[in-house]
Amino acid sequence: MTAPRVPVELREFPEPDLPSGGALLRTAMSEVCGTDVHLWHGRLSGVPYPIIPGHVTTGTLDKARGELKDVEGRPLKEGDRLAFFDVHRTCGKCLACTAHRTPTRCPSRRVYGITDSATEGLYGGWAQKVYLEPGVIIAKLPDAVTFADYIGGGCGLLTSVHIIERAKITLGDTVVVQGAGAVGMSAAALAKKAGAGLVVLIGGPASRLDLAHRMGADVVIDLDSTTPAARLAQVMDLTNNIGADIVIEAAGSPRAFEEGLGFARNGGAYVIAGHYTNTGDSTINAHEHINRKHLDIRGCWGSEVGHFLRALRVLDEYRESVPWHEIGAKTYGLTQINDALAMAESMVIPKALIDPSA
Amino acid sequence: MTAPRVPVELREFPEPDLPSGGALLRTAMSEVCGTDVHLWHGRLSGVPYPIIPGHVTTGTLDKARGELKDVEGRPLKEGDRLAFFDVHRTCGKCLACTAHRTPTRCPSRRVYGITDSATEGLYGGWAQKVYLEPGVIIAKLPDAVTFADYIGGGCGLLTSVHIIERAKITLGDTVVVQGAGAVGMSAAALAKKAGAGLVVLIGGPASRLDLAHRMGADVVIDLDSTTPAARLAQVMDLTNNIGADIVIEAAGSPRAFEEGLGFARNGGAYVIAGHYTNTGDSTINAHEHINRKHLDIRGCWGSEVGHFLRALRVLDEYRESVPWHEIGAKTYGLTQINDALAMAESMVIPKALIDPSA
Amino acid sequence: MTAPRVPVELREFPEPDLPSGGALLRTAMSEVCGTDVHLWHGRLSGVPYPIIPGHVTTGTLDKARGELKDVEGRPLKEGDRLAFFDVHRTCGKCLACTAHRTPTRCPSRRVYGITDSATEGLYGGWAQKVYLEPGVIIAKLPDAVTFADYIGGGCGLLTSVHIIERAKITLGDTVVVQGAGAVGMSAAALAKKAGAGLVVLIGGPASRLDLAHRMGADVVIDLDSTTPAARLAQVMDLTNNIGADIVIEAAGSPRAFEEGLGFARNGGAYVIAGHYTNTGDSTINAHEHINRKHLDIRGCWGSEVGHFLRALRVLDEYRESVPWHEIGAKTYGLTQINDALAMAESMVIPKALIDPSA
Amino acid sequence: MTAPRVPVELREFPEPDLPSGGALLRTAMSEVCGTDVHLWHGRLSGVPYPIIPGHVTTGTLDKARGELKDVEGRPLKEGDRLAFFDVHRTCGKCLACTAHRTPTRCPSRRVYGITDSATEGLYGGWAQKVYLEPGVIIAKLPDAVTFADYIGGGCGLLTSVHIIERAKITLGDTVVVQGAGAVGMSAAALAKKAGAGLVVLIGGPASRLDLAHRMGADVVIDLDSTTPAARLAQVMDLTNNIGADIVIEAAGSPRAFEEGLGFARNGGAYVIAGHYTNTGDSTINAHEHINRKHLDIRGCWGSEVGHFLRALRVLDEYRESVPWHEIGAKTYGLTQINDALAMAESMVIPKALIDPSA
Repeated sequence: MTAPRVPVELREFPEPDLPSGGALLRTAMSEVCGTDVHLWHGRLSGVPYPIIPGHVTTGTLDKARGELKDVEGRPLKEGDRLAFFDVHRTCGKCLACTAHRTPTRCPSRRVYGITDSATEGLYGGWAQKVYLEPGVIIAKLPDAVTFADYIGGGCGLLTSVHIIERAKITLGDTVVVQGAGAVGMSAAALAKKAGAGLVVLIGGPASRLDLAHRMGADVVIDLDSTTPAARLAQVMDLTNNIGADIVIEAAGSPRAFEEGLGFARNGGAYVIAGHYTNTGDSTINAHEHINRKHLDIRGCWGSEVGHFLRALRVLDEYRESVPWHEIGAKTYGLTQINDALAMAESMVIPKALIDPSA
Repeated sequence: MTAPRVPVELREFPEPDLPSGGALLRTAMSEVCGTDVHLWHGRLSGVPYPIIPGHVTTGTLDKARGELKDVEGRPLKEGDRLAFFDVHRTCGKCLACTAHRTPTRCPSRRVYGITDSATEGLYGGWAQKVYLEPGVIIAKLPDAVTFADYIGGGCGLLTSVHIIERAKITLGDTVVVQGAGAVGMSAAALAKKAGAGLVVLIGGPASRLDLAHRMGADVVIDLDSTTPAARLAQVMDLTNNIGADIVIEAAGSPRAFEEGLGFARNGGAYVIAGHYTNTGDSTINAHEHINRKHLDIRGCWGSEVGHFLRALRVLDEYRESVPWHEIGAKTYGLTQINDALAMAESMVIPKALIDPSA
Repeated sequence: MTAPRVPVELREFPEPDLPSGGALLRTAMSEVCGTDVHLWHGRLSGVPYPIIPGHVTTGTLDKARGELKDVEGRPLKEGDRLAFFDVHRTCGKCLACTAHRTPTRCPSRRVYGITDSATEGLYGGWAQKVYLEPGVIIAKLPDAVTFADYIGGGCGLLTSVHIIERAKITLGDTVVVQGAGAVGMSAAALAKKAGAGLVVLIGGPASRLDLAHRMGADVVIDLDSTTPAARLAQVMDLTNNIGADIVIEAAGSPRAFEEGLGFARNGGAYVIAGHYTNTGDSTINAHEHINRKHLDIRGCWGSEVGHFLRALRVLDEYRESVPWHEIGAKTYGLTQINDALAMAESMVIPKALIDPSA
Repeated sequence: MTAPRVPVELREFPEPDLPSGGALLRTAMSEVCGTDVHLWHGRLSGVPYPIIPGHVTTGTLDKARGELKDVEGRPLKEGDRLAFFDVHRTCGKCLACTAHRTPTRCPSRRVYGITDSATEGLYGGWAQKVYLEPGVIIAKLPDAVTFADYIGGGCGLLTSVHIIERAKITLGDTVVVQGAGAVGMSAAALAKKAGAGLVVLIGGPASRLDLAHRMGADVVIDLDSTTPAARLAQVMDLTNNIGADIVIEAAGSPRAFEEGLGFARNGGAYVIAGHYTNTGDSTINAHEHINRKHLDIRGCWGSEVGHFLRALRVLDEYRESVPWHEIGAKTYGLTQINDALAMAESMVIPKALIDPSA
């Protein structure tokens, strides 16, 4: 991706010399996520184009210089099926990393496929090989988890693990999820697995809602064919006029934020996790929606190493009952990347995958 | 108070027959708070006019039928200097009281001076005697706490104890308080006493800011003589461009809410406690102010028994270093109540007091 | 039950006159739980023998005086299948109920089947009818939940809902449960449903472990055929030598508490919920087990209204995948109560049920 | 310190070549803390004798290679008065650092004055100069904070900042602190500054209790002249028979842990922070002290960068009202180090200081 709004080009790079502790991953699968569409639209600031997109990626260990270990200290060998945490160079020293315990806000934070220029190396998954620099957090995929499971979950799954941590679901809670993208679908699945009693997902297009239901939403509401008033009435009806214990915003729309405040019960919680870019302002009433409701609103940015590791445990545990692999609805080869981007932009399918060997 | 916008009348009521467990308080002092002004403006719904206003009130035990005990089970006797928790009949049975642990949202909740008609009895402090119905939570004023200390703190102090609980201040935190009314002043005082390192209070009119400083604010910023940009710049300058750890909204203005979001640091917290009535909508950006900041916003409604009891401990502990008695800037007799209301409405002084024997 | 260690007698009582708001429940099922065995052994102090045992009980509404409503305000009618919260008269006024937010420690707390003498009324479930005094928290059984599901869960399920709240499980956590009684089995089930990745249950006798496995434990360890060292080795092996994220003590043995401290990882949590009576002292090392481990130990006493309501939601949600009805392994009529007690005492089965119409 | 129980020797080392990002501190003051006595007794495992003891140390910047910055990114210059976080090389990658959010349990964690051999460099404060390796967290001492203030607080202050975070004090709480050493004294001071209403410190020898009182304890109890029963009676008397909201163990004795469990109220919290070495087992009753009390026990190990930074803010804020400099009761030169160790071992004074230029 050489610049915003310009077709992505295929380029060849020499295989890098590995420093001690560095490694190469042979890419099995990467994804086209909403962030990639934002990158292509030029909506993220400070991106050092040209870049190799593809932040969450999986594959096999091609080669390593020195002994490579996973995050729990177990040695890795060539051919191992790996995932790695796409956020690297979090400094561990700044206020965000230490005193504030918010490493996702570390100013030094770098993310594969987004913040590293192609001139610096193979830092993106839309490529046959990915450079794993020393210090990158690496884990083996559990034996039963396929590449398609992992990439189907992808960055949306990691984000959702963080969302669920912030949501603090208690057994039997009613949870409303706004958004039927990769984040919303995983959030609905994980809310259910974390003990929610009733999960309601609101989103569109309608073609996605069957999958949302199979992911774990007990009730799905089609955003396009309902009015805000009808949706509010339905949520109140489902909760005996009390409102939802937890609302999760994974839609990225100012209107969704305004609407979600109405779904939450007094003393409930609302996690805001869909606004990764600025899509405009919301108009809300602090008296009605926050103060009198005694409401908690919790922003949720990015994901940490712990969320990455838990995502792997989650896939291992629930891959049979949650069809993550179906989120990655269609797979494209490197020569079809612009088609994949167009498909992701159109939102017709939840997610397009990239298989560099296809 | 027979109706909104009509001068308050003086009426005589017969002394009530006390049921078992009931008592009469001889009023020493009550207050005119912002809620009373709202009552007079008719901005609260469902108020059963005529009412006897005055929700937070103190005095001496006049008489009791049967043995009266304080909340810790210690017997009370006539002449004891008492405070009582103005919220009564919280049901203890509904979802808000039990499963949701938000008793301030109990639908059965009644509040002295607000929700009980004068036709039902002496349920307000702007009177020589107040009826303490069976079950009302009563506590002795600590010996060193004067009536003026207690009423100077008043409902704003109770609210502030709750605010500080929600704020979860850590030693050394920088706290910005928005609002120089009775709530804002107590919140600034308590933030400091709860371990805040730097407390910045933004409010007006300028005449109040000296008291705000003596209450505990290290830095006071005059709302009327500064621009939003200048205030933001000052907060960022005071925090090495990081922003405040905690922001407390006690201003009740939609603009204050919009502005406060900018003061908070990444991963910080913002407590919304000033919007007790609807003063209009705010326009905010969910991406910039909540999601990317990984911010916690916490509504804070009313106060619980525990906050009332802690308020008494707080007064006992800090009355020498915090001039709560100065918040109650002027005292009025029963015949001057309309003057007192006018003074409270004008916001010239932080709080007008009522002394029924004056 | 007229006195400890004396056979339980069958007595007839006149049907009570109902006060306004009072009701009678026609008992469908009650249970014999560990507390009933303690009652019979005389190990609880202050019990006003004679009592009608049976604290958690379910049945149909026989009659009510005045309109009876459930906790969410919906009217109830004769024949409705009901559950009620066995803890009544929690005062809602004392420090425990208010400031400390620990209503299970309210000194006024009364519990059906334990604290109310048979001379006061039908306050126990080992009877054809149970008096529901005004103010008792009542809920309809969800349509799909059978009496056997509800009583199979019983008080152990309510306790477990509280345990899981205290445990604060995060998705993917490894949880070790100590104890294969009604509490341990429900705790294992709920830990799994609340998102635990691996649940290990340690207990006995071996005959219960198959049910424990079907309740949700991924791994079951037979207490009787293993050594403490072997159990520790197994837990460490299952966790890559890190230890369990969460340990739940539901065994009630001083040795279990000592052993459980070793299972927890650094920074983990240990919930103590099995010591409802004093079974002796434990010897532990504060350096090794608490301070250096940076461990959280959380006592968990009784259950609150919210846990009761969540238990009903939990049964509705998971009754198909969790065989709660099997915990109540055998059902006895009123004439067989002493057999039921003997069976419960022997611990051969997880729980004996009482069906007064059998 | 060449080996346990052998007099400490004075040695000269060449000034090191600084790598890029490295620096030298000219030592102004270091301390002899309880850990140093443990080091000298050989009670810590894996210590690479010979070592240069002295973990918390302060002084001025002597020289730096490259631009040296503080933790908030502000440049430092020669002569600046500095403190540095004695814990270095926490990896930021392992489970403890990431997923578990317990960096004080990182296996790679190194601590100045304890874990680094003198053969590796100037890694201890009992020396004229200290090597600040690249990546060490450095902060300027606030202008008003003297070296004696900082070292008087020392490691006990950092530990106490962590303790107070774990204690989660609410305004007005009653806090009991066990121990009159450097940790106990700072914990009492900070509990008070964090909003505790009544702080009771139990410790000895009696000669320290006057300082404990001036540090912030409202009530001091002499451990040596009272019985456990008398102490319990006094705590219950001070709390109207309810017990303390928070108990802090900073005594390091198995008996203190046993005793402290009795001081805590139902639903209270007990922070265990004094058991840095194994001083033997405690015998406790899980029913009486944990389960029925619904108690939280929280181990507290080491301190994090955030605690170091907050300690500096705390010193800046409270140095006038809390006599931290008096904890460092006596100062010794490098030639008197064995006297200083003997004095620390005898526990006659709370802390001995080391001034290498004296």
